[in-house]
Amino acid sequence: MATELSRDKVFFAFSSKMAPAIRIAQGEELVLQTHDCFSGQLKTSADTLETLDWSITNPATGPVYIEGTKPGDLLRVDLLEVKATGPSIMVAVPQVGTMGDVITQMETTVLEHTEDAVVFKGRVKVRQKPMLGVIGVAPAQGEIPNSTPGGHGGNMDCTLVSSGASLYLTVGVEGALFGCGDMHAAMGDGEVIICGAETPGYARVTAQVVTIPGLPTPFIENDDLVAVIASAETVDEAKDVAIHRMLDFLTGVAGMPLNDAAMLMSLTGNLKFCQVVDPLMTVRFEFPKSVLKDYGFEMPR
Amino acid sequence: MATELSRDKVFFAFSSKMAPAIRIAQGEELVLQTHDCFSGQLKTSADTLETLDWSITNPATGPVYIEGTKPGDLLRVDLLEVKATGPSIMVAVPQVGTMGDVITQMETTVLEHTEDAVVFKGRVKVRQKPMLGVIGVAPAQGEIPNSTPGGHGGNMDCTLVSSGASLYLTVGVEGALFGCGDMHAAMGDGEVIICGAETPGYARVTAQVVTIPGLPTPFIENDDLVAVIASAETVDEAKDVAIHRMLDFLTGVAGMPLNDAAMLMSLTGNLKFCQVVDPLMTVRFEFPKSVLKDYGFEMPR
Repeated sequence: MATELSRDKVFFAFSSKMAPAIRIAQGEELVLQTHDCFSGQLKTSADTLETLDWSITNPATGPVYIEGTKPGDLLRVDLLEVKATGPSIMVAVPQVGTMGDVITQMETTVLEHTEDAVVFKGRVKVRQKPMLGVIGVAPAQGEIPNSTPGGHGGNMDCTLVSSGASLYLTVGVEGALFGCGDMHAAMGDGEVIICGAETPGYARVTAQVVTIPGLPTPFIENDDLVAVIASAETVDEAKDVAIHRMLDFLTGVAGMPLNDAAMLMSLTGNLKFCQVVDPLMTVRFEFPKSVLKDYGFEMPR
Repeated sequence: MATELSRDKVFFAFSSKMAPAIRIAQGEELVLQTHDCFSGQLKTSADTLETLDWSITNPATGPVYIEGTKPGDLLRVDLLEVKATGPSIMVAVPQVGTMGDVITQMETTVLEHTEDAVVFKGRVKVRQKPMLGVIGVAPAQGEIPNSTPGGHGGNMDCTLVSSGASLYLTVGVEGALFGCGDMHAAMGDGEVIICGAETPGYARVTAQVVTIPGLPTPFIENDDLVAVIASAETVDEAKDVAIHRMLDFLTGVAGMPLNDAAMLMSLTGNLKFCQVVDPLMTVRFEFPKSVLKDYGFEMPR
């Protein structure tokens, strides 16, 4: 039986001064029950944002103190399972998101869940691919609201943060103080209206310190690819950071010759949007593991 | 037998004043033989950009005068086949592309072609998915160098411009003056070093005027999705244009309610990079055809 942390244990900013809600050993399985991004305040289509208590949006379950972690450590979080329990909520809000200039009517809609899909207004069935919008560790100093992505993780809204993936973060404080939430049962790249299918759920994870000198973080891998995730005030800045960090990884960590790495990034890598609606913009650069293997490199396990 | 246009018939800027190289009827099949983006000047790894004649880079085969087309018409170009004939060329160039600040050594490499792949340095096999980097029609006035993307099409470097896709463009001048080139046997989204697997090849196409009032252009569809393509000085601007044009399409052309369209864009649509290395940046917004169908809309044929 895995240890479990209830969704009553939440925080709203990644802070270096948070008090742990639970302590786990490295490699110990933990199930984090997560709220939807509204803390369950919206239950029917009659519940709109007008009455929402904004101070309790974007909860992350945690903080989780991971034994034996210290500032500067590279932490690998294995997402053994990311499961949406539903129902999901979506909202349209004037003046919010990339289309807020056009949206005039506030609306909340509830999406029922089937075994493997969510259903939008009884009409559109969308295959579930549950992912965590918010995931991270406390920064070395100060605090970062959960709404905001950054070097510590946070609200990256990266669709790769799903079952089977491993996320690498740099520990900022003793114990790491990990947390996650803001699950989406499904979401497109960009998150352009400011939400996906916002759902409660749970994440079954393990976390441990690993040694991969020079690995840029946040960094993520799944069966098929590795990716660096970068956030900045503009997409134009974020993309430059993501591209250069991937090049650094390929040359510095995977040992590829510079020109080969750069050419293969252009030929086989993909620059992708994560989200364009949070206080900072987030992009990722994906690179196929098969090409790493062609150069004799595999991610250490 | 389809009419054929040789790769000797090229132009280097989409100009309202170009003289047609060939005239075809609407619906008539035409095969355009295309050069690689260097006009075949680089043949071996010893051929670097130092001796390149830049005035003949990015050739587009054409101009093709399409009978019965006039300014303002919506032109649908069906890409019946986009076939790379190889070999492909890639280059690394200091000061060029997103990694030009790090690249110190100019290099040209030749990628051999197998039946369905290109081979990078005898080491990495990459599945071919041939696409046209440059494709468009003459603008209503003036001229736009082939290096530059825009409302007329041009150097959009969109990986969707491949076999089986239909591209919609707005005719700027009588006869449309269509052209295409800059084929890539394979390329990742972003084209971050400034090239994909640059290859000669051919495109078998038909073109015809269709009536879809309000369709934003450039617009593309394939079996699975529709997408709007937008270019601007920054990615941040281009993304806003792409998102709003897709919303306009979904509400104005496909007839979806505004909030449904916006929420489903966030849930099932994807904001994607085309390229970030040309004089303007290009992004696209993809939306699944299955969702259009759920709303009773199919692209007219």
